[in-house]
Amino acid sequence: MSPKITGELLRQLRQAMRNCKYFSEPIQAYIVPSGDAHQSEYIAPCDCRREFICGFNGSAGTAIVTEQHAAMWTDGRYFLQASQQMDNNWTLMKMGNVLPDDHKGVFSGVYQWKNMSRALTSAGHSLVAVQDNLIDAVWTDRPERPSTQLRTLGLEYTGISWQDKITALRTKMTERKLTWFVATALDEIAWLFNLRGADIEYNPVFFAYTIVGMNTIRLFVDLKRLSDPALRDHLQLDSPSKPELSIQTFPYESVYTELQAICAALGPKDKVWICDKASCALTQVIPKTHRSPIPYTPLCLAKAVKNATEIQGMKMAHIKDAVALCELFAWLEKEIPNGTVTEISAADKAEELRSQQKEFVGLSFPTISSVGPNGAIIHYRPLPETNRTLTMNEVYLIDSGAQYVDGTTDVTRTMHFGTPSAFEKECFTYVLKGHIAVSAAIFPNGTKGHLLDSFARAALWESGLDYLHGTGHGVGCFLNVHEGPCGISYKTFADEPLEAGMIVSDEPGYYEDGSFGIRIENVVLVVPAKPKYNYRNRGSLTFEPLTLVPIQVRMMNTELLTQKELDWVNEYHRKCREVVGAELERQGRKEALEWLIRETQPII
Amino acid sequence: MSPKITGELLRQLRQAMRNCKYFSEPIQAYIVPSGDAHQSEYIAPCDCRREFICGFNGSAGTAIVTEQHAAMWTDGRYFLQASQQMDNNWTLMKMGNVLPDDHKGVFSGVYQWKNMSRALTSAGHSLVAVQDNLIDAVWTDRPERPSTQLRTLGLEYTGISWQDKITALRTKMTERKLTWFVATALDEIAWLFNLRGADIEYNPVFFAYTIVGMNTIRLFVDLKRLSDPALRDHLQLDSPSKPELSIQTFPYESVYTELQAICAALGPKDKVWICDKASCALTQVIPKTHRSPIPYTPLCLAKAVKNATEIQGMKMAHIKDAVALCELFAWLEKEIPNGTVTEISAADKAEELRSQQKEFVGLSFPTISSVGPNGAIIHYRPLPETNRTLTMNEVYLIDSGAQYVDGTTDVTRTMHFGTPSAFEKECFTYVLKGHIAVSAAIFPNGTKGHLLDSFARAALWESGLDYLHGTGHGVGCFLNVHEGPCGISYKTFADEPLEAGMIVSDEPGYYEDGSFGIRIENVVLVVPAKPKYNYRNRGSLTFEPLTLVPIQVRMMNTELLTQKELDWVNEYHRKCREVVGAELERQGRKEALEWLIRETQPII
Repeated sequence: MSPKITGELLRQLRQAMRNCKYFSEPIQAYIVPSGDAHQSEYIAPCDCRREFICGFNGSAGTAIVTEQHAAMWTDGRYFLQASQQMDNNWTLMKMGNVLPDDHKGVFSGVYQWKNMSRALTSAGHSLVAVQDNLIDAVWTDRPERPSTQLRTLGLEYTGISWQDKITALRTKMTERKLTWFVATALDEIAWLFNLRGADIEYNPVFFAYTIVGMNTIRLFVDLKRLSDPALRDHLQLDSPSKPELSIQTFPYESVYTELQAICAALGPKDKVWICDKASCALTQVIPKTHRSPIPYTPLCLAKAVKNATEIQGMKMAHIKDAVALCELFAWLEKEIPNGTVTEISAADKAEELRSQQKEFVGLSFPTISSVGPNGAIIHYRPLPETNRTLTMNEVYLIDSGAQYVDGTTDVTRTMHFGTPSAFEKECFTYVLKGHIAVSAAIFPNGTKGHLLDSFARAALWESGLDYLHGTGHGVGCFLNVHEGPCGISYKTFADEPLEAGMIVSDEPGYYEDGSFGIRIENVVLVVPAKPKYNYRNRGSLTFEPLTLVPIQVRMMNTELLTQKELDWVNEYHRKCREVVGAELERQGRKEALEWLIRETQPII
Repeated sequence: MSPKITGELLRQLRQAMRNCKYFSEPIQAYIVPSGDAHQSEYIAPCDCRREFICGFNGSAGTAIVTEQHAAMWTDGRYFLQASQQMDNNWTLMKMGNVLPDDHKGVFSGVYQWKNMSRALTSAGHSLVAVQDNLIDAVWTDRPERPSTQLRTLGLEYTGISWQDKITALRTKMTERKLTWFVATALDEIAWLFNLRGADIEYNPVFFAYTIVGMNTIRLFVDLKRLSDPALRDHLQLDSPSKPELSIQTFPYESVYTELQAICAALGPKDKVWICDKASCALTQVIPKTHRSPIPYTPLCLAKAVKNATEIQGMKMAHIKDAVALCELFAWLEKEIPNGTVTEISAADKAEELRSQQKEFVGLSFPTISSVGPNGAIIHYRPLPETNRTLTMNEVYLIDSGAQYVDGTTDVTRTMHFGTPSAFEKECFTYVLKGHIAVSAAIFPNGTKGHLLDSFARAALWESGLDYLHGTGHGVGCFLNVHEGPCGISYKTFADEPLEAGMIVSDEPGYYEDGSFGIRIENVVLVVPAKPKYNYRNRGSLTFEPLTLVPIQVRMMNTELLTQKELDWVNEYHRKCREVVGAELERQGRKEALEWLIRETQPII
């Protein structure tokens, strides 16, 4: 890896900072964060501005360029990589106040512009938004913004029409006395209009903004995408049923000018709703007195609670996904003794098997396929230079998932194809106890997910062990595999309470550096529970696993399990066998079915 | 209860608001909170300004007086009482955004002036501090500020001299580059100087402020208190060992002018450390650029981690306290069948028995002594009009504690002197499971107490039950029975991590409205644990109960307990018998000893 040569680029950027047309004084420091304008977790190549300017392409890092200095802040897991990718013009800085890594990063909103602004103000500086990105001004060969074909989803997938979603949104706006709502998160816009795109790898979203008023709907999107007759029909672009459900379309970039125009016409009491994580430039278009920033938008909250149709779709997607994984594990069992399977080829095989399933669209995130010590690297992704061969002697961890038109999956299994050591089994069993403790937990309505996080750790803690990531994240329905506003983590108090219909992952782990990694992850649905009593009529909730892939008994020290835990495993395996078995049978996948039946034999 | 007549008082207050000498414009609204200038939980009669102006004497409430209106905000548990105590000049308002009650209120900093100020500013108003309290101006018969005799504590109680505490504080100041530290919390000042007072009921503190610089110590206190030669000697007032350990004394009220003088002489980089919960008036004396507000002061943090001498004192105090309670329970068992014991007389008996113990100073909070349905009122305190007789048919809950010179206690036991119902036993057993789950939990160093809260609830949740208060609070050593910065609650993220030497309560409960209340509370010490492994060398912690009073086996459904839980109960009772038994023997308290031996028989 040789570092990027950045001297000339920095010279050009500094010139742009001195000559910015929006300010009379030169810009003293230019901040280049990792993200895009839509608070996306994954970003498109045209938005990789921090990588462009400094060369570092890790997922977390913020670059700051001043007249004299250029510095890039990142956290420990990226120090080596950043030092190799950046040239001498750059100083590598250690991220301050960084919490233990969340390998999923769902809640990593720590470096938002608001916090930066607050910090800068208290240090005597001020944060100003620059409408035209200065990096783009010096990035001559910047890739085009993606504009993939849009896919319409009918009621059989979404359960609710976009028109009804708009009406529900306006009801919320009326309740809160808000006149406008600005949607900037790509998954919220995709969900609202029952559309999907492929603009960002792994995330079936498309670049757009939306501004909803009480009588108008403005959609900002590359207009070339709207020529397809089926799409025009879906959005009723040519013959809206009612005037207030008529969508006005605008070019993607015109959101700033259009929002300015809206704000210029606001009455004194009018308020504009916008997510507090929206970009600085767009937020500052709204005068402060009219701005009503919220941590989670009504779309985010509505999207998180899946309706019956979406739940049914998620269940189907998970059955198909389980079929692919049973095939994979049966195949691995056969192939590993030949010494021909590597982390990369196993990941490829998993993708191939998933792609054979109906309505497969793509992966939902890069597959983590890791052998032995690589499994202890939480953010591992196999590369040719790290690629290990699967053997009968090492633990294999695979964390993978897919997008199907009816749902999104995310599953981790940890397997041993030979004889695991007593310590590996012991650790696996503690992780399993944690997984079960969350999955089987009964808790009152209104409980926030972070209150369940310690359940996942209790068994590990009791033996002096732990893992340094959260326990679960929200999962979208044919949308982003990581979504808010709920989750299970020790790190946040800002999550919204769990509700029946929400879908989260349950994924405790244990990582023995230089040796092995263990994680057991199911996607689980929040469902009502009916315990013996009902204190203050609050009602109770629990989880139902949507993931139906056997958990390897060979990795368990069953003597460490309580009767309740054994019962949970046996009941889970019974359900895997029944539901996934029927589908394997239907698809005529005999070897995988035999594997499933063997792996789901009750523990006695 | 007849309401307080407030018409004339409000007229006078409004006149004072119009004519305030500090502002050219009239004050439009005057806010009268519950607290005193030292963020105290309990307050002295001279500080009961909210009660004086509106008549309402509950523990939580904020009054606001404008030219036209007078309104008092409180929460649901006080609506009836407030409506009876306030006349027609006052409007009763429901507290907005109030979380489920924390019956201990340790973390109830929600209505601080900072939040008020923020809210007022965003509504177009501004919060200004008025140096002379306007209520005091119209309160003609206001009680004197208490000025009780000060007690000096030697090294045999404190383990560290006040001089060493000052030195440690200055080391922290140097580390953080702070030139001044302002102490406003009364327990921090008492702890710092190894002094105790009796200015506030239940809390062995005295009214004072302290300002520590790198070379000076200023103590603001009623100067009449400093005549005692032993006290002068303790503080080295007449012959300081070193100039930087020389204490300058000032009248209590002069803290404002003295702080103003200090601030006038600050260098451009000088910073003044002050708790972010300190009073508005005092905080605003410090210019904003020199102010360094912190949630927990270095004194608060140092005080929370008890040293070996303090731990030894706390253990001794808890043994004496257990002796008194064993006596009480043996006496109750004998007396209840006669029908002569009431909630009040039982509480009085408990106090009498505690007062027989060496170095008893007083109670640490008002005793909660409650029979049957009264036990379900979490904030209950027996009054003549609610006083119930203890019988063989109802559950009895007593939550009580004392101040001894060597330590502070706080213990809750729930007993039945006849035959408890199956439901009462079931609920008690779930609460016990929660108590044990916290007490026996092993967790990594650095864990915050709030992460343990769900352990206390899991068994209740599983049956659809819960309790609406936190699980534990910090406990002072011959200081306030509620102290920060640690605790065990679902409500906060702002607690500091638990450390070996910290002392907290463990007190889950269950309350069946109109029927009974259950709570099992021990004070527990955070101690190092030695589990099998030591992940990343972080070390582990667990709890050791300091409270050694038997937990009534008659109330348990032992079939619901796991073997681990049974072992915990048996080991706990073995320790009670051994340690408290020896002291009962020594004190010749035969009946109590017999009771103890019977109540600590192992469950098989």
